[in-house]
Amino acid sequence: MDKLIVTIDREYGSGGHEVARRLCDRLGLKLYDDEIIEMAAMNTGYMKDYIKYNDETAPQLNIPSVYSGIDTFQTATSNKIQDEEFRIIRRIAEEGNCVIVGRAADYILGDIPHISIFIFAPLVDRIRRKLALIEINGTDPMTEYEMEKKVKQRDKQRRKYYEFYTDNKWGAHVAYDVMINTSRSGINAAVDIIEAYIKGGKGKDLLSDM
Amino acid sequence: MDKLIVTIDREYGSGGHEVARRLCDRLGLKLYDDEIIEMAAMNTGYMKDYIKYNDETAPQLNIPSVYSGIDTFQTATSNKIQDEEFRIIRRIAEEGNCVIVGRAADYILGDIPHISIFIFAPLVDRIRRKLALIEINGTDPMTEYEMEKKVKQRDKQRRKYYEFYTDNKWGAHVAYDVMINTSRSGINAAVDIIEAYIKGGKGKDLLSDM
Repeated sequence: MDKLIVTIDREYGSGGHEVARRLCDRLGLKLYDDEIIEMAAMNTGYMKDYIKYNDETAPQLNIPSVYSGIDTFQTATSNKIQDEEFRIIRRIAEEGNCVIVGRAADYILGDIPHISIFIFAPLVDRIRRKLALIEINGTDPMTEYEMEKKVKQRDKQRRKYYEFYTDNKWGAHVAYDVMINTSRSGINAAVDIIEAYIKGGKGKDLLSDM
Repeated sequence: MDKLIVTIDREYGSGGHEVARRLCDRLGLKLYDDEIIEMAAMNTGYMKDYIKYNDETAPQLNIPSVYSGIDTFQTATSNKIQDEEFRIIRRIAEEGNCVIVGRAADYILGDIPHISIFIFAPLVDRIRRKLALIEINGTDPMTEYEMEKKVKQRDKQRRKYYEFYTDNKWGAHVAYDVMINTSRSGINAAVDIIEAYIKGGKGKDLLSDM
């Protein structure tokens, strides 16, 4: 692998962004998460907030019809934003030495050698972590029930997005190199694992290393 | 964690046994794979081959009935053998510093701190690896079609076994700490990853490491 490209997909609240951030700090890689939204705003002229609203979201319906009353404008816009994000992801990968978070990047870069990571944790821990972060950051408080709904809704949104644009099931192991349960490992050991994998040069593949 | 206990479950042909063996070599741990069969033979008095035949296999039916003609003797024997294997696994874990392969050990040791690994690879690579091993070892040749059937059948057997004795789906990420695609990593980098995870002391958990 000439250029190091790491994609990190993640369940909501599992600390995937934080794993990506620390991995970048440790290895001097560039982080692309919401940075992709800013780049898409620059390129399309849409407002950042509008792109964020459509970011990592499947089009609401993709069968336009004058009879159904479906908002085909929304669908077309959503597709246009995703297309731009996918172009950006491929351009980022050409530069290399980067970590790309979410946005089906593992699939978009299917033909480009890269390391594909999935970060997950049990639902109950992700709810607790998000509630703890609210307390730390002093943002609007939520009940545990409200947070459970939010976490599930965001997972569902990411799943629908991933499965709309790829052939794979979100979070099913076949799509990934390594999957890490941060509830067991914590954030730093997750970074240790990815670092060991990279430094082992990804090893040989299964068929040349028996 | 006082004692180091690693469980490794694996898809058939993914090199899980080889990962376990090299991990044991590298860290001076004891390997328990078919060793468990030998121990169960000693303890139950059944022949090794008979235990191997029932090993990692769900009972064929668990509803005995004089009307159905179901072989309840086979069912009872299978359960007895599994029970003995589970007792052995818990005894092994008490000693610690070991790697236990398969046999739903991650679930059997649910209340004992341990590291739970799942090794997988795409079907096509596992078929090729098993065919290559036949060539290397000079055992009876098989066609690709025959090997595909065998690999799928063994996976199915392991899945049924795992799901009969546990509450989890076999290979679904929720049950594991780390899952590794050996088709991407190779065997040695898989060992690197597990070593990094162990030496990081497993890190803190998600909620104390934000």
